[in-house]
Amino acid sequence: MSKSITKRSQDYSKWYNELIVKANLAENSAVRGCMIIKPNGYSIWEKMQAQLDKMFKASGHQNAYFPLFVPKSLFEAEEKNAEGFAKECAIVTHYRLKNDPTQKGKLLVDPESKLEEELIVRPTSEAIIWSTYKNWIQSYRDLPILLNQWSNVVRWEMRTRLFLRTSEFLWQEGHTAHATKQEALIEAQKMNEIYRDFAENYMAVPVIQGTKTDNERFAGAEITYCIEALMQDGKALQAGTSHFLGQNFAKAFGVKFANQKGKLDYVWATSWGVSTRLMGALVMTHGDDKGLVLPPNLAPIQIVIIPIYKTDDQYQDVSNKAIEILNHFKEKKFRIKFDDRRNQKPGFKFNQYELEGVPIRISLGPRDINNNQAEVAYRLTSEKEIVSLDFLYQYVENKLASMQGEMFQKALKFQLENTFEANSMNDFIEILNDKGGFISAHWDGTSESEQAIQNMTKASIRCVPQKRLMEEGKCIYSGKPSNGRVVFARAY
Amino acid sequence: MSKSITKRSQDYSKWYNELIVKANLAENSAVRGCMIIKPNGYSIWEKMQAQLDKMFKASGHQNAYFPLFVPKSLFEAEEKNAEGFAKECAIVTHYRLKNDPTQKGKLLVDPESKLEEELIVRPTSEAIIWSTYKNWIQSYRDLPILLNQWSNVVRWEMRTRLFLRTSEFLWQEGHTAHATKQEALIEAQKMNEIYRDFAENYMAVPVIQGTKTDNERFAGAEITYCIEALMQDGKALQAGTSHFLGQNFAKAFGVKFANQKGKLDYVWATSWGVSTRLMGALVMTHGDDKGLVLPPNLAPIQIVIIPIYKTDDQYQDVSNKAIEILNHFKEKKFRIKFDDRRNQKPGFKFNQYELEGVPIRISLGPRDINNNQAEVAYRLTSEKEIVSLDFLYQYVENKLASMQGEMFQKALKFQLENTFEANSMNDFIEILNDKGGFISAHWDGTSESEQAIQNMTKASIRCVPQKRLMEEGKCIYSGKPSNGRVVFARAY
Repeated sequence: MSKSITKRSQDYSKWYNELIVKANLAENSAVRGCMIIKPNGYSIWEKMQAQLDKMFKASGHQNAYFPLFVPKSLFEAEEKNAEGFAKECAIVTHYRLKNDPTQKGKLLVDPESKLEEELIVRPTSEAIIWSTYKNWIQSYRDLPILLNQWSNVVRWEMRTRLFLRTSEFLWQEGHTAHATKQEALIEAQKMNEIYRDFAENYMAVPVIQGTKTDNERFAGAEITYCIEALMQDGKALQAGTSHFLGQNFAKAFGVKFANQKGKLDYVWATSWGVSTRLMGALVMTHGDDKGLVLPPNLAPIQIVIIPIYKTDDQYQDVSNKAIEILNHFKEKKFRIKFDDRRNQKPGFKFNQYELEGVPIRISLGPRDINNNQAEVAYRLTSEKEIVSLDFLYQYVENKLASMQGEMFQKALKFQLENTFEANSMNDFIEILNDKGGFISAHWDGTSESEQAIQNMTKASIRCVPQKRLMEEGKCIYSGKPSNGRVVFARAY
Repeated sequence: MSKSITKRSQDYSKWYNELIVKANLAENSAVRGCMIIKPNGYSIWEKMQAQLDKMFKASGHQNAYFPLFVPKSLFEAEEKNAEGFAKECAIVTHYRLKNDPTQKGKLLVDPESKLEEELIVRPTSEAIIWSTYKNWIQSYRDLPILLNQWSNVVRWEMRTRLFLRTSEFLWQEGHTAHATKQEALIEAQKMNEIYRDFAENYMAVPVIQGTKTDNERFAGAEITYCIEALMQDGKALQAGTSHFLGQNFAKAFGVKFANQKGKLDYVWATSWGVSTRLMGALVMTHGDDKGLVLPPNLAPIQIVIIPIYKTDDQYQDVSNKAIEILNHFKEKKFRIKFDDRRNQKPGFKFNQYELEGVPIRISLGPRDINNNQAEVAYRLTSEKEIVSLDFLYQYVENKLASMQGEMFQKALKFQLENTFEANSMNDFIEILNDKGGFISAHWDGTSESEQAIQNMTKASIRCVPQKRLMEEGKCIYSGKPSNGRVVFARAY
């Protein structure tokens, strides 16, 4: 582990990049804008996947898999969606390479392998899925369809950042089809609620739930529900969206069903997704100047035991006790590791697991064995405590049980302390430049005012919050009437 | 469920295609050669993934994720590998669409978005991974690297069949790096053994383990270990391969490490993979004229309960008992479903679950309740038995416990009965045309003879078996000396 990382207060952005790389979460690849997710990062993503998948299945969804490629003619069928993604599409035009006659060992795209119709690498799968649903849906008996897919998608990005914005990313995308508008609306709201539950109770990331404005809505959606989180630098991060798509895709692909009265109608749709971006949210919400801090519910390793010894005899004694502790926690289904590498010093290991955010570290030396004790370090607060081995198991279990809630409370406190009301453009700009954060302000409901504020301040409307006090006020930009505040922030 | 499917004896190929579609496992998509894996199929694939992933982790591997795209210059670095895949590559050449000025609502590839260097959609990831390992490996301390990735790959295929050969497929690919040749060899063999274990003990598919000949080896490998299964039509199916790659990729990408004596050497490599092709092997090994037959270890639903009733009162009585049975098995961690759809008749449900291959069906009517009994149908043999409710739990558990072994034994019997020795070209051709199957025959070890036999008969050498009797003989084609038999077959 090489040295420490930049402090958050010095350069938050640099801190983030260094942390991601030094904790071995991810790195940039030889392909522009595409990242490599390293084992440390992927194992956290696997935990996220497993929990989300469980929640999706418990709410009646099944997994399926649709093609990576979308023929251009299908891609362009839903015009708004196509327009929204057209400028960031990787496009397959050929299907064969051939030897370069001028350079041995080099290959050229074979011009004779040009495709009749270009294929778009999916930036999202509404088009390919709704062109399929057309064949699956004839009657109300075929509805609802409640599918999810775990996949990779590609959105060509000019400026990329590990996890937060990459040209290829991993995600899940749910795509559902319903007989009624009401049912589709409920589905989109239900998924928004599942995302909130996951963010708050597993990631320990408090979020604001709400809907996007016209400017910020998903291309092709009628309503976009979102969860918005606040990072430690005062910038917001959109952590998950679920879309009520109305009948837009059904109309674009001609998907009709016969209702119970035999009347034909277009099908109602939703789609919803979260991505590896959540990894960025996790790091930026909880990380500190020593590295990552992982909530126990998602930590691939919850407890690490580090032996301290000089002689082989000492190693033996310490190991025996460590393995006893290891087995106890393994049996109780905790995720625990005994790091018995003999070619690395304890100090090196301490740093490594602090950087990687392991919640609990138990260290055990010969003196500890003699005194029937161990040192327990708590990653969240960096507190260390000497604990009698008689009480160790209960102590560690209690710490882990309370850590999840403590992390959430700490993040919630930060969010609340960094949520402000602004009643004028001056206030608004002062708050933004001073501390950032969520700014609750009146807005006249027009795209023009929203855009003007964004142009002036780089802050956008993150959402019209779900829990919104209806109150009369004046738009901070136009002075026109508003019937409630919306949440602004600069955002990732 | 529409009608029955074609009988295997009538047209095996048609039987396969109909079964895949009618059991809702997969279907063709709007994209040439790419399939849609439907929920029924994907849920089996998830079970396969979960088990394999467990086995990979238990043997010390971790998951990671590498980019979908491979820059052409990296792709061509290992020449044999590049040559092997060059003719089946999807190639991304542009990254933006623009409005078609001549047709409203249509899009064109923006010629200004041409990439400086084309990107290959990965057909396999050795190139992108070894160009990364170069940065990760300096010393023997950085070795071994034992990574696996679950991903999609694309190999442009002209003739495709659901699961067996598709342009895009899902798979896992392991990529390991080692300090010694010996260690890499052991790794490749270990993964071959894990694949055998999985095929035989989870899929109930008996396999022959062996190595590929030069003609059949993975492009860029020095040794390819494989498992070969025999389908009911007498054709072989390659079910998994693991490759000892020597130092080929290390040399192509300049990946050297300092050994313990400080001397620089190239790193040794393996790669190994199984894919959604295994779904085809599962269907073709066990399916019968009624549909799929799933081994309990992989069946998403192991037991289904179907209520039989006329009146609402009867439905209530039957349901109460069914839910009692459901809860019992759920508690014991069996995967069980109570199909209480009221708009479908029992006969329809019986057909559906036979088609979908659910191992055990329990049906329960008012008369059964009165007589304290249930009817249990066993998918493997189609036997039905009336079982007292006093013994039902034990009966079903026993059936499920023995079914896995019975399925394996049945498939093994078929494999052995369809493995033949041929001592002349005439014998060889007669056996092939008569029944197919594995044919064990002498071969002189040359690519020429192998190719000549394949040209004459369409049979290829599936493997040089691991358990091979060394015996002197004469090549059935050339008459030249051979020191042991190899396994031929026509193959998928």
